Amino acid sequence: MTRQNAASLRVDLNSDMGEGYGAYRMGDDEAILNIVSSANIACGLHAGDPEIMAKTFALARERGVAVGAHPGFPDLWGFGRRIIPFSTGEIERLVAYQVGAAQALSAYAGHPITYVKAHGALGNLTQTDPDVSTAIARAIKAVDPKLVCLTFANGHLERIGKEMGLRVCAEVFADRAYTDEGHLVHRKVPGAVLHDAHEAAARMLRMVRAGAIETISGKLVPAPIESICVHSDTPGAIAMAAEVRRTLEEAGVTVRSFS
Amino acid sequence: MTRQNAASLRVDLNSDMGEGYGAYRMGDDEAILNIVSSANIACGLHAGDPEIMAKTFALARERGVAVGAHPGFPDLWGFGRRIIPFSTGEIERLVAYQVGAAQALSAYAGHPITYVKAHGALGNLTQTDPDVSTAIARAIKAVDPKLVCLTFANGHLERIGKEMGLRVCAEVFADRAYTDEGHLVHRKVPGAVLHDAHEAAARMLRMVRAGAIETISGKLVPAPIESICVHSDTPGAIAMAAEVRRTLEEAGVTVRSFS
Amino acid sequence: MTRQNAASLRVDLNSDMGEGYGAYRMGDDEAILNIVSSANIACGLHAGDPEIMAKTFALARERGVAVGAHPGFPDLWGFGRRIIPFSTGEIERLVAYQVGAAQALSAYAGHPITYVKAHGALGNLTQTDPDVSTAIARAIKAVDPKLVCLTFANGHLERIGKEMGLRVCAEVFADRAYTDEGHLVHRKVPGAVLHDAHEAAARMLRMVRAGAIETISGKLVPAPIESICVHSDTPGAIAMAAEVRRTLEEAGVTVRSFS
Amino acid sequence: MTRQNAASLRVDLNSDMGEGYGAYRMGDDEAILNIVSSANIACGLHAGDPEIMAKTFALARERGVAVGAHPGFPDLWGFGRRIIPFSTGEIERLVAYQVGAAQALSAYAGHPITYVKAHGALGNLTQTDPDVSTAIARAIKAVDPKLVCLTFANGHLERIGKEMGLRVCAEVFADRAYTDEGHLVHRKVPGAVLHDAHEAAARMLRMVRAGAIETISGKLVPAPIESICVHSDTPGAIAMAAEVRRTLEEAGVTVRSFS
Repeated sequence: MTRQNAASLRVDLNSDMGEGYGAYRMGDDEAILNIVSSANIACGLHAGDPEIMAKTFALARERGVAVGAHPGFPDLWGFGRRIIPFSTGEIERLVAYQVGAAQALSAYAGHPITYVKAHGALGNLTQTDPDVSTAIARAIKAVDPKLVCLTFANGHLERIGKEMGLRVCAEVFADRAYTDEGHLVHRKVPGAVLHDAHEAAARMLRMVRAGAIETISGKLVPAPIESICVHSDTPGAIAMAAEVRRTLEEAGVTVRSFS
Repeated sequence: MTRQNAASLRVDLNSDMGEGYGAYRMGDDEAILNIVSSANIACGLHAGDPEIMAKTFALARERGVAVGAHPGFPDLWGFGRRIIPFSTGEIERLVAYQVGAAQALSAYAGHPITYVKAHGALGNLTQTDPDVSTAIARAIKAVDPKLVCLTFANGHLERIGKEMGLRVCAEVFADRAYTDEGHLVHRKVPGAVLHDAHEAAARMLRMVRAGAIETISGKLVPAPIESICVHSDTPGAIAMAAEVRRTLEEAGVTVRSFS
Repeated sequence: MTRQNAASLRVDLNSDMGEGYGAYRMGDDEAILNIVSSANIACGLHAGDPEIMAKTFALARERGVAVGAHPGFPDLWGFGRRIIPFSTGEIERLVAYQVGAAQALSAYAGHPITYVKAHGALGNLTQTDPDVSTAIARAIKAVDPKLVCLTFANGHLERIGKEMGLRVCAEVFADRAYTDEGHLVHRKVPGAVLHDAHEAAARMLRMVRAGAIETISGKLVPAPIESICVHSDTPGAIAMAAEVRRTLEEAGVTVRSFS
Repeated sequence: MTRQNAASLRVDLNSDMGEGYGAYRMGDDEAILNIVSSANIACGLHAGDPEIMAKTFALARERGVAVGAHPGFPDLWGFGRRIIPFSTGEIERLVAYQVGAAQALSAYAGHPITYVKAHGALGNLTQTDPDVSTAIARAIKAVDPKLVCLTFANGHLERIGKEMGLRVCAEVFADRAYTDEGHLVHRKVPGAVLHDAHEAAARMLRMVRAGAIETISGKLVPAPIESICVHSDTPGAIAMAAEVRRTLEEAGVTVRSFS
C-alpha cells in the first residue's frame, strides 16, 4: 500500500445530481453543490430531463464543480435501480446515447462534461460483470476517449477501462462497508451502510491517507482512492457529506476535482 | 431567379429514417437508402431508440449516405406530429439533447452526423414562428456550429440560421404544393399533396433548373433548391422518390449530399 | 342565494393525492389524509403508478376517506399541467382508460372509487370548453354512470354532467380568488392566489354559509358549495387545509364526503 | 385421455390484437379478426393505447369476436417480451391496472371483456413460476372474479386459477412444439416453432380430437384443449391461422368463443 505524504494528499468528492424529472425533485442539489467537487448528472433515461440537465450543468459551472455524465438503464419507474435485461451491445448504445446528450447540454451550458460514471444498477453491474464493464468502456471510447471513467476502486471497469486506454478514476463510498476482497458489502448485510457521519468521515480520511480500502474487518486493501462518493437525497446524507469534506480539509487533504 | 447551367446542376435528396421504436417499424429504410443522399435520423424522443439509431447510422455509412440528426417533440404517442406546448427555451434544450445523442451514436457507428433537420410539428413551426426558428439555430450553434441546418426554402429558419452564422441548406418537398408566397399549401387544401410520381418528379426537375420554388399557380419564387425531401413510409412514396432521382439523373442533375 | 341553516351545514374537503411516480414523491399524502374527506387519486398518466395508486387507496380506506379517480393528460413530464392537443374523442378514451384503472386498483384495495375529478390542464379546460366537458361526462357515463362528477362550481361540466344525468358535486378552491362571473381569477393576476390560511379559511366558511361563491370584489354568486379543494404539496398548503377544516368545524359545519 | 365425440367438438381460436402504439402498427388486426373467435387486446403498457384499444374493441364487436384484456410488463421498448424485475405484489397491481383499463374501454365500446390472458414474458412466466401465476389469479379475482383466465394448458396458472375459484380456459399454440411433459419446447431448440400451415392445422385437429397435447415425440399428454392461440404479425401467420380454422371446420369442429 502506498502511504502518501499528507502535504500532497488530495481527493475528489462526487455526488449524483439532477435526478428530478419534470415537476419531480430528488435530493438537494443546491446543498450538495457546496460540498462536492464533481457532480454526476443524470441523462434523461433513469432520471433527469433536458431542462434539469441544463440547469444543473449551469449551477455546477457557477459553483466551480466539475460535471460528468451519469447514464443509467432507461427505467424512470425504477429510477435506474433495477437490472433491465439489455444485452451488452444494447448497453453500449444506451451509454453512448446518454453521454452524447450530456455532452451537448453541458456544452450548451458552457461547462462541458469531463467524465462518465454509470448509475445505480448499471454501475453496480461493473463490480461483478466484466462484459458490462467492457460495454461501458467501449461506449466512452467511441464517443470521446478523453472522457475520464469514474468507477469503483477495485472493480472490473477500473481494470478494463485502463486496459482500453481510458483514464480511470477510482472511487470509494463514504457510507458503504467493504468486504475483505475490497468490494461493497451487500446492502442486506448488517453493517453494510454507515449512518454515523463522524465515523464515516474518519474512515474516509484513513482510506485517503492509507491509499487503501478499509474493510469491514479492519483490513486494508491497497487501491487508489481518487474520489469519494457521497449522497444528497436525505438530510442525513447532506450532513455526512459535509462532515466528510470538513474532516478531510481539517486534516490537510485538498478536495478537488480529478479532471 | 438564377437559372443554372445544367452541366453544373446538383441537388441533395433527403428522407426521414430510423423512425421505428423497439419492435415497431415505420417506413422502408432499406429501400429509401438506395435512393437518397441524406438520411434524417430520429433521435429517440418522437421515434427511434439507441439500437435503431446505431443500426441506421451504420446502414447509411455502408451505402455512402450522409446522416443528420432529426430532433422532434418528445411525443412518441403523437410521433412528433403535434405541437406540444414547450417554451422556446425548452425547445433549445430539447434540440440540443437530441443532437448530442445523435452525435454520439453516429460517432459510435463510425459515420458522424453533418447536419440537423427538425421533425414534424417542430419543423413545421419554423415556417411561421421566428422564435422557434431562433431556438433551433441557437441549439445547433451551442452544440456544434459546424453542423449544417437543413430547413424549408424560404422559411424563417433559413434566414435566421444564416444570420446566426450557420451554414444553411434549403429544401423543397417533392410531394407538396407551394403557395405564391413560396410556403407549403396547407394539407387540408385540395391539391396540397401530389400523388403522381411523374408529375412530382418533373416539377422537381423544373425547380432545380429554375433555382426557384414553383407555386400551385405556376409562378416561380426564386430560392436556392439545395435539397429535396422525399418519403419512405408508403409503397407509393418509395416509388415517387425513385422517380424523382431517376428524372433528375436522366436530365444530367447530380444527386449528391450537400455536406 | 340559498342561505342554509348552520345546524345542517356540511361540506366535503378534497385534495389531489398519490401524485408520485416510482421513486418520486409529490405532496404529503399522510398529512393531508388526516384533514380531507375525499382523495383524488392520480391514475398513472400524468402522475401515479399502480403501486402508488394501490397504496394510496388502502391508506384512504384506513383513514375513512372517500376516493375518486383523478385522470389527466398523459404527460408525466408536464405533470398534467399543459394542454396536450388531443381531440375530444381522444379525451373521452383517455378518461375512460384512467377511470377503469382506478376502479380496478381501488377494488383491489377494498375501497372502490365513488367519483371522478379531472386533473390540472384537463380540469381547467372544463371551465371554458363545453366540448371537453362533454367528453369527460361521456367517459364517466360510459364506464360507470353511478360515479359522481366532482367539478368546478359554476363551470360547463357542472351543467353538462347534470344534463347527461350524472350526479355532479360542485367545488370551490380554498386558495383561489374568483371573478365576478364566478370563475377562477387567472393565476397571473395579482391576488389570484390566497396565501393567508386564516383569510382563506374564513372565506370558505362564508361561502359555505352563503351557498355562494364570494368574488374578488366581494360579490356573491349563488352556487352550491358541496366540496372545497385544498392542496398538500407545500408546508403552507397543509397548514391552510388544516385551518380550513378547523374553522369549518368550529363553526358547526360538518366535514364529510359527498358520496 | 378423454376422446370426445366429433359431433360435439368445439374450440376457441384466440390471437393477440391491438398491439400498435400511436402511429405504429403491429399485426394485421383486420385480417385476423375474420379468423379468430377471441381477441386478446393489449392494455397500453407493453403495447396499445386508449385509441387503439377502443377501436379494436369496437371492431371485434362488429365481427362478433369475444374480447379479453391482455396485460403485459410495462415495457413498450421491449414489447413486453422481456422479464422486467417486478415483485409478485407489483405484478398483481400491474395486472389489476391493465384489466381495469380494458374493462372501461371495452364497456365504452359496448363490448365488455370476458377474459384475461397475460402477454409475452409475463404469460411465459406462468409456465414456470407458481408465484407469478398466483399474482395474476389474485389480480383477476380482485378486479372481477367472473372474468375467465385464459392460459397455457398444463401450466401453473391453469391449476392455481382453478384452485382460487376462477373459471380457467386452457390453450395450446398452433405453431409451437411441446415437450413430453406438455410444456413449450424452448424457441432455441430446433423444431420448436412450426412453419408449415398444413402440418400445424392437422396437429391442432388431432389435439382437439384427442383432448390432449401432442408432444414433439408424438406422445399425448391429456389436457383440456379449449382454445388455440394463433398469430397475426406476419403474412405466414395469418395464412396458418386461416388454415387451422378451415381444417377444424371441415372436420366438423365448431370454432366458437369459450365465453
